[in-house]
Amino acid sequence: MDNNSIAWKFINGGVAAPKGFYAVGVQAGIKAKDKYDVALVFSQVQAQAAGVYTRNLVKAHPLYLTQRHLQNGLAQAIVVNSGNANACVGVAGDHAALAMAQVVATFMAVPAEDVLVASTGVIGVEMPIDRVLSGIRAASAELLGDMVKGIREPKEISENGAHRAALAIMTTDTTVKERAYELPCEGGVVRLGGMAKGSGMIHPNMGTMLGFLTTDANIASSELQRILREAVDESFNMVTVDGDTSTNDMVLFLANGASGMTLSKEELSNFENMVKTMCIQLAQDIARDGEGASKFMEVKVFGAKTKEDAQKIAKSICGSSLVKAALFGEDANWGRIFTAAGYAGAEFNPEKVDILLGDLIVAQAGRGVAFSEEKAKEILALKDVHIRLNLHMGEEQATAWGCDLTHEYVTINGSYRT
Amino acid sequence: MDNNSIAWKFINGGVAAPKGFYAVGVQAGIKAKDKYDVALVFSQVQAQAAGVYTRNLVKAHPLYLTQRHLQNGLAQAIVVNSGNANACVGVAGDHAALAMAQVVATFMAVPAEDVLVASTGVIGVEMPIDRVLSGIRAASAELLGDMVKGIREPKEISENGAHRAALAIMTTDTTVKERAYELPCEGGVVRLGGMAKGSGMIHPNMGTMLGFLTTDANIASSELQRILREAVDESFNMVTVDGDTSTNDMVLFLANGASGMTLSKEELSNFENMVKTMCIQLAQDIARDGEGASKFMEVKVFGAKTKEDAQKIAKSICGSSLVKAALFGEDANWGRIFTAAGYAGAEFNPEKVDILLGDLIVAQAGRGVAFSEEKAKEILALKDVHIRLNLHMGEEQATAWGCDLTHEYVTINGSYRT
Repeated sequence: MDNNSIAWKFINGGVAAPKGFYAVGVQAGIKAKDKYDVALVFSQVQAQAAGVYTRNLVKAHPLYLTQRHLQNGLAQAIVVNSGNANACVGVAGDHAALAMAQVVATFMAVPAEDVLVASTGVIGVEMPIDRVLSGIRAASAELLGDMVKGIREPKEISENGAHRAALAIMTTDTTVKERAYELPCEGGVVRLGGMAKGSGMIHPNMGTMLGFLTTDANIASSELQRILREAVDESFNMVTVDGDTSTNDMVLFLANGASGMTLSKEELSNFENMVKTMCIQLAQDIARDGEGASKFMEVKVFGAKTKEDAQKIAKSICGSSLVKAALFGEDANWGRIFTAAGYAGAEFNPEKVDILLGDLIVAQAGRGVAFSEEKAKEILALKDVHIRLNLHMGEEQATAWGCDLTHEYVTINGSYRT
Repeated sequence: MDNNSIAWKFINGGVAAPKGFYAVGVQAGIKAKDKYDVALVFSQVQAQAAGVYTRNLVKAHPLYLTQRHLQNGLAQAIVVNSGNANACVGVAGDHAALAMAQVVATFMAVPAEDVLVASTGVIGVEMPIDRVLSGIRAASAELLGDMVKGIREPKEISENGAHRAALAIMTTDTTVKERAYELPCEGGVVRLGGMAKGSGMIHPNMGTMLGFLTTDANIASSELQRILREAVDESFNMVTVDGDTSTNDMVLFLANGASGMTLSKEELSNFENMVKTMCIQLAQDIARDGEGASKFMEVKVFGAKTKEDAQKIAKSICGSSLVKAALFGEDANWGRIFTAAGYAGAEFNPEKVDILLGDLIVAQAGRGVAFSEEKAKEILALKDVHIRLNLHMGEEQATAWGCDLTHEYVTINGSYRT
């Protein structure tokens, strides 16, 4: 749900919606036949850039390159492949990531340092670099063609290109995840595009969360980094799938100023909310999508002393195997929810906690209360289940999202490596 | 495996093996018919006492009472019920825990403050206190009878009583967990008894780990606390079942000095190793036992800079849903092991890490190496799977234990509350 549907509106075009951005996805033969697996996102002009990365100590090769290239806060292209994580393969992996950036640089006539690289897929297997580079060449050629068309006529938002890019970053996702918004400002509009991948059930070796945002607003990279970090903290970082954070997780944000709009203080505030909403929507898409996931869980913790406490508790509940299994079994098991809150490492007084399933109070002041099993059953039969905790300790709150633990998860993740 | 089979030997008798200790279990009707559900452990003389508790912020009512009673480092009895956790029921729960201590105090003629109380079972349901107290009276009567017999003749280790106590603390355990050792010293022997409960697959609302140790050695409570803490840190705290720590976890240790033996420095060192070994054996029993668990996992991390780093990494790997699922699927998936190490919050250089399955090297210096899939298959087909990581960063090491994630776990924990 949008924070403020009056402030901005949905538009088509995904990451290519903002002015001056182009995107495409191609089939390079890394994944199975007829699957898109290389994506290219490009800005006609150099853009301010920001990025947030996995906290996993083990980082895939492209992450190191991207972090280096983002040191100056500038970028102009993002190239992504799926089907191979380019991780844990030694120096060949660093070479592969660099080669990807260099081919984009050559074709699109930009410095290699302005190209950011991401990968997702199998860990520990060397990249089929010939196929990847040939895919990048094809993608570049197509984008150059789009750009020429765009310069001659009013740019037709290459929706199809952006959509194919969103397909090309997927691994075990069952749905494409892309959105775009348009925010009216004094004298014009600014646009925000986004695409993401990540699946509620993480497939063997492919458990990566990626997000890519584009905007034509005029925002300096340090400000962009702050906006991105805050948005990610309330969205992607609040999604728990199975508790594992991958070696490849990354969210990147490019702002090219092509709208010509410099935002007022109030407009910037709306813009930040728009970015947060975009990220939350994409994060929820990730939580909902999963081979085998049968339910979506939203846990809201309010009345906390600190935001950090609320976040820890919300995530702990979403990540609890016992809570997830209870969700699968449609079991109104507040004891497990309470237990998961208790080991979150956050501060609260157990004797003050209320727990609600939907709007049904199941525990109050730290003890169970009589509740209608029938009503509980209705609530838990839904695909979307809302759990709320009131800590009665302060004014801070946080929300996290997740899914249930199903037999499907065990089957998928217990299967022999293909 | 014992650290040093020459130093101590296995004996029978569980928690009643040490001199001056008695134990019994009775059927009080809290659990299903014909199930033992109240246990009583008693020392003929007041004992030095120590305890370690759950880190969950939400604590069951008996934990608060036990912590208060242990403030002076003295105790003489432990009373335990299974079938009800006596948690999250408000002030009625505090009254119930106190009543349990008071009945023991009355029958066994000791101060109520010298009685420690533990419970395990369903959270949020009030205790069937009449049944519990009547069970405690029956248990006390039986123990008084045993003690009278013991005073008249050389004490027959009431093996049967200790065994019934070990049954009475169980919830979803499928096997009893008890052991006893005897350590020869200058001029005599000291004995150590122990029993525990906890299951590799945690049943709805009953996911508690309990441990009770007894000894007739002469050890002051502060020293006992240190020995217990160190042993628990390397044993019970290194078992990961499904990542959830319950509201009721507790390990208690009573030392009554009835052996008449004051240990020399070297004998104390042997004694500490014996306690550590006891706790590790009981902890492994817990990891192995689980409805549905088909495999036992031991993860040893060595070459770490700090012990804490090694512990975090070992536990992270044991607790990873993806690693557990791979274990179930007998999949030699080192990428998941590496990823789980990477988000443990410990320090290491990914480019130095070696990973072994059994004695088969599957990754070296942070990258995959060719290995025999046949050999890997053999290793993973075993019930006990050993995973090792060499971080090449220092001299510290740690070991953690866990089990696989199976369909059975989802079935059990997704079932509607009974």
